[in-house]
Amino acid sequence: MFVAVVGGAQCSRDEAKLAEAVGVELAKRKVTLICGGLGGVMAAACKGARSAGGKTVGIVPGNTRDEANPYVDIPIVTGIGEARNVIVVNTAQAVIAIGGKFGTLSEIAYALRSKIPVVGLNTWTLSKNGRLVKSIITAQNPKEAVEKAVAAIKGAEEAAK
Amino acid sequence: MFVAVVGGAQCSRDEAKLAEAVGVELAKRKVTLICGGLGGVMAAACKGARSAGGKTVGIVPGNTRDEANPYVDIPIVTGIGEARNVIVVNTAQAVIAIGGKFGTLSEIAYALRSKIPVVGLNTWTLSKNGRLVKSIITAQNPKEAVEKAVAAIKGAEEAAK
Amino acid sequence: MFVAVVGGAQCSRDEAKLAEAVGVELAKRKVTLICGGLGGVMAAACKGARSAGGKTVGIVPGNTRDEANPYVDIPIVTGIGEARNVIVVNTAQAVIAIGGKFGTLSEIAYALRSKIPVVGLNTWTLSKNGRLVKSIITAQNPKEAVEKAVAAIKGAEEAAK
Amino acid sequence: MFVAVVGGAQCSRDEAKLAEAVGVELAKRKVTLICGGLGGVMAAACKGARSAGGKTVGIVPGNTRDEANPYVDIPIVTGIGEARNVIVVNTAQAVIAIGGKFGTLSEIAYALRSKIPVVGLNTWTLSKNGRLVKSIITAQNPKEAVEKAVAAIKGAEEAAK
Repeated sequence: MFVAVVGGAQCSRDEAKLAEAVGVELAKRKVTLICGGLGGVMAAACKGARSAGGKTVGIVPGNTRDEANPYVDIPIVTGIGEARNVIVVNTAQAVIAIGGKFGTLSEIAYALRSKIPVVGLNTWTLSKNGRLVKSIITAQNPKEAVEKAVAAIKGAEEAAK
Repeated sequence: MFVAVVGGAQCSRDEAKLAEAVGVELAKRKVTLICGGLGGVMAAACKGARSAGGKTVGIVPGNTRDEANPYVDIPIVTGIGEARNVIVVNTAQAVIAIGGKFGTLSEIAYALRSKIPVVGLNTWTLSKNGRLVKSIITAQNPKEAVEKAVAAIKGAEEAAK
Repeated sequence: MFVAVVGGAQCSRDEAKLAEAVGVELAKRKVTLICGGLGGVMAAACKGARSAGGKTVGIVPGNTRDEANPYVDIPIVTGIGEARNVIVVNTAQAVIAIGGKFGTLSEIAYALRSKIPVVGLNTWTLSKNGRLVKSIITAQNPKEAVEKAVAAIKGAEEAAK
Repeated sequence: MFVAVVGGAQCSRDEAKLAEAVGVELAKRKVTLICGGLGGVMAAACKGARSAGGKTVGIVPGNTRDEANPYVDIPIVTGIGEARNVIVVNTAQAVIAIGGKFGTLSEIAYALRSKIPVVGLNTWTLSKNGRLVKSIITAQNPKEAVEKAVAAIKGAEEAAK
């Protein structure tokens, strides 16, 4: 299973704690962690995953693997800048968004466009013409976020049978 | 000047009318229209621009210029799929979003991330942690949308001097 | 009609002369010039096209239109780095390669892969397993290069009817 | 260590044998195999790597992981079409090219442009203005190809110290 964790390359201490715990929970379930490979939420999630024996893939925007945070096992060196956000999302079967700014919002948007489930922890809320768009699955804590992401993937696999 | 018009490849009749009028207003001001080159809002905006003697650029996702709507003067054939949304946005000095779904949301997010002004007509509203994020400039009609987009570009040019 | 001119961002004086003359010949035939938007062969070709009243599109690798040479009418700001070479090629109906290094070779390769005709002026020669691969149409001078590019496009259009 | 194996998505039986043996030799040296994820040379190389306990990454052009050959451990789903060739190359510290057509040539060109060493087995020969460009390291067999790729990476690492 492949789950992306998306969020700011800079983040608050609280967001980093959430991300690290998400990484641990993913690793416990033998899920490979996909991310944008940089710092902040991405590094914290990779750190958590590594600490629990999980595997991490970092899809970096620039031209060098040195850009990847030290907890990335497999750096994918795209050189295509922010357009790499599409790849982070497409490579995952579900996305967990933690906090984040506009870059994270672009990833949420791409995921929802591709019908990839998105679980949110303290992240964006979307509305259109005054009505809430309830496309992001909300979670209260890292464990619940990972459980909901895994359940969404299993649900999709069942439906595809 | 370069302004992108973004919105659904399928759209309602009302959205098409808005888009066409935006195209007309852009052309009157000799602004080159940038868009994703397909149907719906994109085709309507190009049609409007063309009818008023304006120039249109369509940055299409697929591998062939045949994909561009018939009102595109210069088709840019990217072959990079939805990742081309970044290019639509980066190529413009301001973005006008009309209605739209998650693809449009990704373009709004990319524009805001790059500090490119976004003017919205009946489009997304964003909030985070229960607070409205007022990054999208709202407009009530096509003329106002174009005026606000042009004003934002001039403001940015002044500031850069 | 859309023809790409590809070659080094740095180039010799002789290559610049060839490129400028190619730009002039394209403009005379009302062909829109597509290029990577930077200096060297690209700038020289755009300069020639402009001097003869032609239109120029520069598809730049970085995140800013300031990167485009001063003879570009329509800068397409990709932000996807060298991956933009594919877009330069896909956007054209024929490619004229002048000199060039490995970046130019990637564009020739992409064009041939997509069955877009390539005309070469002092550029790469390809062979495989000791046998010459005669896929690049050779030309002796700028006028001949443009004539052969235009003829190839017309031939393809005839064949598609 | 990360080495890319590039070659046709369709290939001859001889090329497939070479690719499979290259995969085996990479796995023996604990090198992670990077490739474009599809059939032909890519599938054969992944099959070889897997059979010897190695790890494989497939960077596919389309929008679905189903596109990856069955020997890919980690499918990277780019959705950016042929532009993904740049990513295959950038992600590797050395490239081994086996046979191949114009797509492979684009990968060789991109690698050489980025100063990533390329080892060739029965692949392209390049010349410019009548002179051979000896940028591709030639190898006579899979073992030699892998040894030369690994040596080139070690040489680059030494030089960077």
